Amino acid sequence: MTIQTAVLIETLTALGAEVRWCSCNIFSTQDHAAAAIASDSAAVFAWKGETLQEYWWCTERALDWGPTGGPDLIVDDGGDATLLIHEGVKAEEVYEKTRQLPDPSSTDNAEFQIVLTIIRDGLKADPKKYTRMKERLVGVSEETTTGVKRLYQMQANGTLLFPAINVNDSVTKSKFDNLYGCRHSLPDGLMRATDVMIAGKVAVVCGYGDVGKGCAAALKQAGARVIVTEIDPICALQALMEGLQVLTLEDVVSEADIFVTTTGNKDIIMVNHMRKMKNNAIVCNIGHFDNEIDMLGLENYPGVKRITIKPQTDRWVFPETNTGIIVLAEGRLMNLGCATGHPSFVMSCSFTNQVIAQLELWKEKATGKYEKKVYVLPKHLDEKVAALHLGKLGANLTKLTKDQADYISVPIEGPYKPPHYRY
Amino acid sequence: MTIQTAVLIETLTALGAEVRWCSCNIFSTQDHAAAAIASDSAAVFAWKGETLQEYWWCTERALDWGPTGGPDLIVDDGGDATLLIHEGVKAEEVYEKTRQLPDPSSTDNAEFQIVLTIIRDGLKADPKKYTRMKERLVGVSEETTTGVKRLYQMQANGTLLFPAINVNDSVTKSKFDNLYGCRHSLPDGLMRATDVMIAGKVAVVCGYGDVGKGCAAALKQAGARVIVTEIDPICALQALMEGLQVLTLEDVVSEADIFVTTTGNKDIIMVNHMRKMKNNAIVCNIGHFDNEIDMLGLENYPGVKRITIKPQTDRWVFPETNTGIIVLAEGRLMNLGCATGHPSFVMSCSFTNQVIAQLELWKEKATGKYEKKVYVLPKHLDEKVAALHLGKLGANLTKLTKDQADYISVPIEGPYKPPHYRY
Amino acid sequence: MTIQTAVLIETLTALGAEVRWCSCNIFSTQDHAAAAIASDSAAVFAWKGETLQEYWWCTERALDWGPTGGPDLIVDDGGDATLLIHEGVKAEEVYEKTRQLPDPSSTDNAEFQIVLTIIRDGLKADPKKYTRMKERLVGVSEETTTGVKRLYQMQANGTLLFPAINVNDSVTKSKFDNLYGCRHSLPDGLMRATDVMIAGKVAVVCGYGDVGKGCAAALKQAGARVIVTEIDPICALQALMEGLQVLTLEDVVSEADIFVTTTGNKDIIMVNHMRKMKNNAIVCNIGHFDNEIDMLGLENYPGVKRITIKPQTDRWVFPETNTGIIVLAEGRLMNLGCATGHPSFVMSCSFTNQVIAQLELWKEKATGKYEKKVYVLPKHLDEKVAALHLGKLGANLTKLTKDQADYISVPIEGPYKPPHYRY
Amino acid sequence: MTIQTAVLIETLTALGAEVRWCSCNIFSTQDHAAAAIASDSAAVFAWKGETLQEYWWCTERALDWGPTGGPDLIVDDGGDATLLIHEGVKAEEVYEKTRQLPDPSSTDNAEFQIVLTIIRDGLKADPKKYTRMKERLVGVSEETTTGVKRLYQMQANGTLLFPAINVNDSVTKSKFDNLYGCRHSLPDGLMRATDVMIAGKVAVVCGYGDVGKGCAAALKQAGARVIVTEIDPICALQALMEGLQVLTLEDVVSEADIFVTTTGNKDIIMVNHMRKMKNNAIVCNIGHFDNEIDMLGLENYPGVKRITIKPQTDRWVFPETNTGIIVLAEGRLMNLGCATGHPSFVMSCSFTNQVIAQLELWKEKATGKYEKKVYVLPKHLDEKVAALHLGKLGANLTKLTKDQADYISVPIEGPYKPPHYRY
Repeated sequence: MTIQTAVLIETLTALGAEVRWCSCNIFSTQDHAAAAIASDSAAVFAWKGETLQEYWWCTERALDWGPTGGPDLIVDDGGDATLLIHEGVKAEEVYEKTRQLPDPSSTDNAEFQIVLTIIRDGLKADPKKYTRMKERLVGVSEETTTGVKRLYQMQANGTLLFPAINVNDSVTKSKFDNLYGCRHSLPDGLMRATDVMIAGKVAVVCGYGDVGKGCAAALKQAGARVIVTEIDPICALQALMEGLQVLTLEDVVSEADIFVTTTGNKDIIMVNHMRKMKNNAIVCNIGHFDNEIDMLGLENYPGVKRITIKPQTDRWVFPETNTGIIVLAEGRLMNLGCATGHPSFVMSCSFTNQVIAQLELWKEKATGKYEKKVYVLPKHLDEKVAALHLGKLGANLTKLTKDQADYISVPIEGPYKPPHYRY
Repeated sequence: MTIQTAVLIETLTALGAEVRWCSCNIFSTQDHAAAAIASDSAAVFAWKGETLQEYWWCTERALDWGPTGGPDLIVDDGGDATLLIHEGVKAEEVYEKTRQLPDPSSTDNAEFQIVLTIIRDGLKADPKKYTRMKERLVGVSEETTTGVKRLYQMQANGTLLFPAINVNDSVTKSKFDNLYGCRHSLPDGLMRATDVMIAGKVAVVCGYGDVGKGCAAALKQAGARVIVTEIDPICALQALMEGLQVLTLEDVVSEADIFVTTTGNKDIIMVNHMRKMKNNAIVCNIGHFDNEIDMLGLENYPGVKRITIKPQTDRWVFPETNTGIIVLAEGRLMNLGCATGHPSFVMSCSFTNQVIAQLELWKEKATGKYEKKVYVLPKHLDEKVAALHLGKLGANLTKLTKDQADYISVPIEGPYKPPHYRY
Repeated sequence: MTIQTAVLIETLTALGAEVRWCSCNIFSTQDHAAAAIASDSAAVFAWKGETLQEYWWCTERALDWGPTGGPDLIVDDGGDATLLIHEGVKAEEVYEKTRQLPDPSSTDNAEFQIVLTIIRDGLKADPKKYTRMKERLVGVSEETTTGVKRLYQMQANGTLLFPAINVNDSVTKSKFDNLYGCRHSLPDGLMRATDVMIAGKVAVVCGYGDVGKGCAAALKQAGARVIVTEIDPICALQALMEGLQVLTLEDVVSEADIFVTTTGNKDIIMVNHMRKMKNNAIVCNIGHFDNEIDMLGLENYPGVKRITIKPQTDRWVFPETNTGIIVLAEGRLMNLGCATGHPSFVMSCSFTNQVIAQLELWKEKATGKYEKKVYVLPKHLDEKVAALHLGKLGANLTKLTKDQADYISVPIEGPYKPPHYRY
Repeated sequence: MTIQTAVLIETLTALGAEVRWCSCNIFSTQDHAAAAIASDSAAVFAWKGETLQEYWWCTERALDWGPTGGPDLIVDDGGDATLLIHEGVKAEEVYEKTRQLPDPSSTDNAEFQIVLTIIRDGLKADPKKYTRMKERLVGVSEETTTGVKRLYQMQANGTLLFPAINVNDSVTKSKFDNLYGCRHSLPDGLMRATDVMIAGKVAVVCGYGDVGKGCAAALKQAGARVIVTEIDPICALQALMEGLQVLTLEDVVSEADIFVTTTGNKDIIMVNHMRKMKNNAIVCNIGHFDNEIDMLGLENYPGVKRITIKPQTDRWVFPETNTGIIVLAEGRLMNLGCATGHPSFVMSCSFTNQVIAQLELWKEKATGKYEKKVYVLPKHLDEKVAALHLGKLGANLTKLTKDQADYISVPIEGPYKPPHYRY
């Protein structure tokens, strides 16, 4: 719930939607944006600095339109709303058959315990709530790598309950928001949280996907020496071609000043890495969930002390060495927690994709065009998103002649590239 | 036929192949490399500075193993060998049915007239040559955007005569050779041909695909102010995000110092553009055929004078203004004509793809795995190409744990990305 | 009064000084830093958001040690403390001879009216205050271009009252703080104040000195297209060599998105420029006083409306067009007003120069080494500042052999460069 | 004797001079440029690939105008002509007093033995040649760091025989030719000599002065990982601020792929370093004389084998390991030996300084303005050189108002900066 999200809500409202809103991250709500939206555009269930309990309570509340209503469409970011509905439906089906309620103690995952608790408590009051919701739902559009991965898994398992549009893999999303957004918001977050001089520092970027590429570019340009860690040999070779060293975290853990995780995976920086870091090394995550960094291991490290410098900026001091590291945003997305997220221009690209996806789902709701599968937007819509943003930057596009279009076998008005084109 | 191609030939020979070789470009043969190969590895039909007649004669000769032999596999670059065989077969089929010989005057295209002439002349001597050839052929692997486009057109038309592997769209080809290769070889060609100082100049890059991105990066880094022309709004927006201005050629034609075409299309810089350029503006092509630049229009411009500064560097003077422009490599690929092409490291990536493709075609020749279609290499082979090149650059890859691999749903040993991933 | 200044104060205190402190800028005091210092290290006369009256009251108060004391040394930044003393002494001399008090109405400059008022009011109470102060003063060290310029003018006019060390022109100040400091703090200030995406925007940097070079580099690296304005042909040629366009403000005023003044001069962006800017163009100053931007003209523009978005971020709307521009920090230094100034590492270089200068002045106070002139630090001290900062960044210096040192005629231990060397 | 030098000669000739010319480097003469000049503008004593004997013979011959003439002015580059005259005069003075001839065996330096031999042989024929020469000489202008260092030493020793203008330390020379010239010509030389892909390689730049800065920037931008060696802590800190690692040669000698010396000192890369390098590591010098690299040690290394790949590109194979390194231009300036030196635009800046210096010396020859000392050009002439080059790059300078000029205390028409300004 940033200013940019607020404009998205206003846009959807202007298009005729009735909107209810919750956040995708306990730290990322900008309270002034939430307040503005709450006053005139949508019901808002979010504030900066929620607990996990509050976060899931908000998610559940946002989905509740009262007895006769419910969402027709979901605009998702991270997939938590979609997850809650799917888990809810699963529990209701089990309950209908067996009268068994979901058991939070059946999982070790603290956050999932909360999800199960919320479903269990709701089930007692209304054993068909999520089932009615899924029956009404026309579809979801999802914009993160993480959320999309879940959708494809559900598609593969045959458990996806409604059509989904993967907005994340629009070119105008993944190659813009992920890359250029992070190139902007990583240094922004570092500066606001720590005021550290980036020039001259050694920075480790874990992962060299689109997010990692944006982060590495930003750090290199600001004068840091950047070292990349990668599992994928192709991405590793790309890093090398840009003059970046590719090493393992173990190789550099005690030498670097700044560590950034961008992997979308878990267990990237473990407490045993953190113990070996230099005093006041900065550790942050811009990739995915807080489990990229071993926050659990850190919190439970015997004798560790947490000193909050300011909100979202904590110094953790290890007892053996009395040296400490600076962890940003409690291991969660630092650009949302410590700065204001991605800037408007790039979010406009992403959200234009979201709006176009929502319009498409709604327009085709009765045609059967979209089954219970995951779709990407067709390329001409992707190109349209880009075209809509060129005027603001003063660009003049060149027009193909008929002859040229025929020569390269594309329509004059596009789309111009085959589906596999990588940009 | 560069030094790198020579090593490819030596590699194929070492793997057991008997190789015959011709060039894909009338200017790109390095005679010392050709001589070395001719002396010990392969029959070579190429030299630097062929006429178009000689070029196609070479192509035809390279394919001729004598009465009892013929190629089993083709390693193609630009698709001219594949084209000749397809046109040859088509002509032989017509001839068999109708006794009609191909008529060179049936086309306006000067180069295609040569092709038809060669086929016609061969047809009289042996009316089944190309037919026998296509029957023997196990497949082709092709490495250029241009050649691949032709293959897909033949696949679409149902005229493709044997299986084809599209090596161009391996990530380790298109995102390396095209991008990093041109980032190296464009300034190399400019410097060798003209010694021009790039810093401070205004450079126009027509097209912002992988080749254009490499060229624009090289020119920007060398201190030029770079302006991009594009038809595709997505690529245009990428250029803008890198701080490059996006305008039409008309907007800047009389202001810029250096013009580079990278489009893969035709009719990009016309003689009417060239007339308006500043004195000694440099015009060159690194994208595709010489028809990116209107060489025909230039040559036929009334009163134009061509002054050859040195081979591949011509000054063309217009009679009205008595000012001239510098055209490199007669409008053909300037990095091959004016420098030595791409450097070995990146060509090794491309050629490793070629070798792997050739091995794959040969291994599967009897299994029916490959039909008369166009295939890209599977991602694990693409990743293997990258992995083979990391050691030379001192990289240490990170290994996934089992737990992490499960978490992101990939095998520990890869492949790590979904097919649509863009890198 | 940033965190870095606080550490400087603690350092001076630890070296034995008794410190009183005021700010050099009405917006730049970080209240938490001021509070920390006030509690244990020094008397502080500064807070964020002073009026000009309050600012000069603070300056006067900071200099007042009571009847028996007074400053022995001044650490100056911008030269206002030095100015006040010089103006005070001048007024006291006139008063002693003529009994004339200074007349604030004798000047049009609103700020100088305040200075004269403060001196006039003080003069009635104690007509010898500044005279006693200058007699006690051993010297001043000054770190800004602006302050140094005043000192050289006073030296040229023969009015300098005590020795001065020009810390600004230490290499480890001007080529670090001005260049690398601004490269960091300009985007920091822009992001914090406006969250604007820099990539894709057109930015005008007025002035290409060290500050301008840092700003232009930061903006270019962040993906802006940067246009430079310059009066000096050498600096202009440097900009061109980096691929930056050099134009006048008039050429681009209605096309650009971001305007930054870095000149150290006045009247750079006038209200007539601002009227022609695009809606929501951002205008800011990182060079010098707020008169780089015509704030007076803006404030007095008929019908103009000021909308404060948040402190230090104002939108000024012109009545004719109803479009507005965003002015940062009321035209004062935006990196101090909208962000936290330069980061610690580079300020450490600057302040190490200050401390070394203070130690030098104090050590030589009785030797007559320093006359009433302006001095720069000797090169071996400049090199020492750099050497003290290398360890933190993991650098290993190479040592000259005796033979090599003789060959290039420098001592093994330095200094290594002639005085005119430009770095 | 490059194309650019040829234009300088034509310019001097057009201004009325009679010119005789020799080279400053045994490899750098471009024979086509020399031939063109010899045919219509000046007597030329130079060819590509001289022996050292031939080189000094050429220098002596170029200075010999026959019995009645002699040079009035010298345009020097490296100071060898100036050296020969000073050594000649010294020898003639000794000879006049003592009848002792110079003894080549009095020195270990092979090149200086040649100088003494030439002087000795000339002395027998004409014992007053150099004395007459120095009496006629109005002055010299010198453009290299190395040549200037010698001039200042002679000034310090009181042995300078005529006025000298240090053109090297014009801003428009040292901050342009050295920096931007090398940024262009280092990769140019590497590419032409070796075709090596720079991206992904580890490059060591020895020295981070202007030349080193240009080289490091070029290598970094081309995708290399750059490590700098430095003796000067200030330059080292500058490298760090650009994200470059600062280490000693010993730290990285066995890890790097490309080594470049830029120091102006001797004994930078010794044979014991070269023995430890990776196979096919590239070693080159762009700083100064060939003694930056221990060519003598390499040539005399027991069992070493030299394999000439092509002129100026030698592979030296060590017997113990049978691995070899690639040495460019026999350790001499690789941009002159392997490419064509700096491009015209930047050489035009340097040579405009030379021409202005020559005009100044000649205009003031009778006024006594210039004594037997070393002078730099006044800043207004330095600014004039820059101003003359702006139009070609399309720049529009801003003009100061009278009010602004007064405010910063400079004349409206410049010069704009104090002498110590570093740019």
